[in-house]
Amino acid sequence: MSYKTDIEIAQEATLIHIKNIAKKINIDEDDMEMYGKYKAKLPLSLINESKIKNSNLVLVTALTPTPAGEGKTTVSIGLTEGLNKIGKQTTVVLREPSLGPVFGIKGGAAGGGYSQVVPMEDINLHFTGDFNAVEKANNLLSALIDNNLQSKVNNLNIDPRTILWKRVIDMNDRALRDITIGLGGTANGIPRQDGFNITPASEVMAILCMATDFEDLKQRLGDIFIGFTFDKKPIFARDLNAENAMAILLKDAIKPNLVQTLEENPAIIHGGPFANIAQGTNTIIATKMGLSLSDYVVTEAGFGADLGAEKFLDIKCAAADLNPKCVVLVATIRALRHHGGAKKEEYNTPNLERVTEGFKNLEKHIENIRKFNIEPVVAINSFISDSDEEVQFIKDACANLGVQAVLSEGWAKGGEGTQDLARAVVDVVENKATQFKPIYDWKSPMKEKIETIAKEIYGADGVVFDKKAALNLKRIDRLGFNDFAVCMAKTQKSFSDVESRIGRPTGFKVTVREIEIAAGARFVIPILGKMMRMPGLPSVPASTNMTIDNNGVISGLS
Amino acid sequence: MSYKTDIEIAQEATLIHIKNIAKKINIDEDDMEMYGKYKAKLPLSLINESKIKNSNLVLVTALTPTPAGEGKTTVSIGLTEGLNKIGKQTTVVLREPSLGPVFGIKGGAAGGGYSQVVPMEDINLHFTGDFNAVEKANNLLSALIDNNLQSKVNNLNIDPRTILWKRVIDMNDRALRDITIGLGGTANGIPRQDGFNITPASEVMAILCMATDFEDLKQRLGDIFIGFTFDKKPIFARDLNAENAMAILLKDAIKPNLVQTLEENPAIIHGGPFANIAQGTNTIIATKMGLSLSDYVVTEAGFGADLGAEKFLDIKCAAADLNPKCVVLVATIRALRHHGGAKKEEYNTPNLERVTEGFKNLEKHIENIRKFNIEPVVAINSFISDSDEEVQFIKDACANLGVQAVLSEGWAKGGEGTQDLARAVVDVVENKATQFKPIYDWKSPMKEKIETIAKEIYGADGVVFDKKAALNLKRIDRLGFNDFAVCMAKTQKSFSDVESRIGRPTGFKVTVREIEIAAGARFVIPILGKMMRMPGLPSVPASTNMTIDNNGVISGLS
Repeated sequence: MSYKTDIEIAQEATLIHIKNIAKKINIDEDDMEMYGKYKAKLPLSLINESKIKNSNLVLVTALTPTPAGEGKTTVSIGLTEGLNKIGKQTTVVLREPSLGPVFGIKGGAAGGGYSQVVPMEDINLHFTGDFNAVEKANNLLSALIDNNLQSKVNNLNIDPRTILWKRVIDMNDRALRDITIGLGGTANGIPRQDGFNITPASEVMAILCMATDFEDLKQRLGDIFIGFTFDKKPIFARDLNAENAMAILLKDAIKPNLVQTLEENPAIIHGGPFANIAQGTNTIIATKMGLSLSDYVVTEAGFGADLGAEKFLDIKCAAADLNPKCVVLVATIRALRHHGGAKKEEYNTPNLERVTEGFKNLEKHIENIRKFNIEPVVAINSFISDSDEEVQFIKDACANLGVQAVLSEGWAKGGEGTQDLARAVVDVVENKATQFKPIYDWKSPMKEKIETIAKEIYGADGVVFDKKAALNLKRIDRLGFNDFAVCMAKTQKSFSDVESRIGRPTGFKVTVREIEIAAGARFVIPILGKMMRMPGLPSVPASTNMTIDNNGVISGLS
Repeated sequence: MSYKTDIEIAQEATLIHIKNIAKKINIDEDDMEMYGKYKAKLPLSLINESKIKNSNLVLVTALTPTPAGEGKTTVSIGLTEGLNKIGKQTTVVLREPSLGPVFGIKGGAAGGGYSQVVPMEDINLHFTGDFNAVEKANNLLSALIDNNLQSKVNNLNIDPRTILWKRVIDMNDRALRDITIGLGGTANGIPRQDGFNITPASEVMAILCMATDFEDLKQRLGDIFIGFTFDKKPIFARDLNAENAMAILLKDAIKPNLVQTLEENPAIIHGGPFANIAQGTNTIIATKMGLSLSDYVVTEAGFGADLGAEKFLDIKCAAADLNPKCVVLVATIRALRHHGGAKKEEYNTPNLERVTEGFKNLEKHIENIRKFNIEPVVAINSFISDSDEEVQFIKDACANLGVQAVLSEGWAKGGEGTQDLARAVVDVVENKATQFKPIYDWKSPMKEKIETIAKEIYGADGVVFDKKAALNLKRIDRLGFNDFAVCMAKTQKSFSDVESRIGRPTGFKVTVREIEIAAGARFVIPILGKMMRMPGLPSVPASTNMTIDNNGVISGLS
């Protein structure tokens, strides 16, 4: 049996003009800016707060994932097709992919199989230029910092050893992780140790995704914390008059992008912050745009629910006053086997015992979602290696907890395969949704907020603050950043901070090594392990096998 | 007397929808890809070789410029307005600006006063993403090179000390000129000395501008020369299978961009290679596109005619079989005073003696243009400090040489101020144009080609090849690159390689220090002095004074 690749399915699709997609959500052609025939930017004036209140926000998240991921994007798109099929006018709102993984190992992020957003190639490549705009705004600030270090006019007396702001590039390029800049004499700046992060790891990306309007964006850009002067005064981007020029570079990037699903439903794709050291979900503006234009919005957040959903709810929803009415927990039988102790080579072999043991992981995620006062639905993302018996076990085990678990066959069948899931979601939205509540109050003491997440969501007995983290807490207090949200940076492979602790670990503490500050994004980032900010290319990069013919037809992109 | 700034004039303009500009040159709305309402990408299928033969190409170049520049872009746009006003259907074809100078000191490149292309802000910012695409294609190759250095699979045995390929960033960022990458241990690549150039200095940009179609682009990308293996074998981009992935990143960047002039005439803006170490003119594809769609095309090339026009004619026109029918030499009274010995503080003070002496510079450029078998027209780019007597002197002196010198008042008056210039150009095109001939044959020996340019165009007595340059000549021969064109890298401030030799220097030799190879662009670059590839920011960067309000209205951009 051979399957079509994602790009083959996407290329066979007949797309309709984006103005006809816009028409479906009552956007006039004149109100948007087309980028070719199949992409458009939407003006912020379409955001309508009263419509947002009457719309229904659904978050798609997952159990603790295996390295391949459990298919959140595919389920989000599939669910959108299903909801539209059963008569609920729905828009899917997603993150933009980074170029790095496209040419590296992971591939793009436009869904898979018959649950994709299109034009897949454009979305996975430069799209409408948002990532580039973020990169340029980030790097303009870097250039201004290094220029100030050696400038005789307006010199801010910045101590180069304290500069936290790094340059970014949207490329998997490990050789740029640790570099020395400013070499070669007085004409070339001041020598210092530096490094590049990948663009999704830029705080400018986090800020773009947290901003509620252009004014807020500019304010947040000015608030970026850079480092200290030699006499220990904090320096912000506004001290370099950088925020206006940065905002100029982001004037179009702040507008959400409209594309379509394979079944011609609207998809808004906007922003793409890292899920490990940032919030890992699309822009507040895009989510609000979707809610302003549709009865349902399906969206997703990176990694498992302990990270993605927690940050989505406690950071994004709390900041933007959003009220998600249902959380879809994506589970795969493969991942449940893994959490039950199956080895990698056993992932695709039915084993009810492993699945039964692995269910404990899913159960903890279900309990967690309920702590936010939201009812979950479990979507079993269907794979051909699933046995009927394993699937039935999950359904029964969830039913015992009062949760619907529904097979999601969007990858193979598109909306035809997700209508049951759509009905389960509508049931929760219409019959069980009230007002969600965050797990912590932003105004609580910083240490307490971190402990709340660790105990309530991860199931930890407590939090150990390393010496550096304890000092960082004092700095946060001194800088007046106590009311910031908490953006946890932890492995996605375990509830704990130890990758090998699969399933539902108990009797553990997590260790905060240090706490970073994203003052423009208005969160702090407790670092619970080594966080990757610049991936590398594999031995055989994906780019090696890509081709494009003289008509522009691409193969090998995934 | 106070003048409106360029951005104020541009913002006051009422733009018409780009589909209506397209209509003027018989492009159907469905044939192009709109980027918002005022920008569009044009498909390569609109290029029509037989129409190209019947159209008229006019190059705008300049005398040896002062640092502020003599206004080639402004004259090009103004002349286009004037030609359209007198009934010649004309498109202006220009380069895209780089972000670096926009935030640095020089500003953008969308013309000035009442001779501008709009939307000025978009053109000067990310535009349609072409520069970003070039940057990403360039940097993907860099990442692949550094990945290969440390890869155990398909390791090419590249000697890191020989790598000529640098990363690029479209930013004025002197701290990246000289850096050390790959530090921090085995996970982070192989340590080596490296540096970033600004994006217009990328060979990918030069290649994009030399490519005649997508197939040619891919071929040229594969031809990029990277360095040597430890056993001295040359390594090309194709050895890393990089050309397809790079071409994928350039799939939209290869399409020319359509915008409009202030008087609603078509403008095609595409590509922007450096004028110092590259060819400094827009893409062959854009020029051919313009010629396919209009009766006249006005285009420009960077720096003075000794560099810009020579490269335009000997590299671009020779490669693409283009036949320019008139060359407009832009002169300013200010620059003529300079070449006559005026000091900077005297530039704006009438002085017939200086102008008379300075005319020798212009005279040499006139002689040079005629060596290509093309008749020049002199455009005196009008400034308020010009005296009638100085202007009359230029007109008379030119008339003595059989050349029309016409006042160009496009900056102050738009097309109203350039109709005389337009008529002079039409006179040359209709009555004096035959077939242009390059100054050298690509098939001549490399050394001879360089000497021909130096003697014929610069007026040098000869060329000194430094030891390194002599070795480089041997390498070029060994690699089989003898038939490449010559892209001279020389100061724009003098016919010679010494900046201070203003006017029309004689009795000098030029020294070639080394010769670089741009194998994908198919030219070699004799370096006659220190060439800037990464500008720095000034003490007070332009970005500092820029603002953008909450409606997106920008000020301080120039």
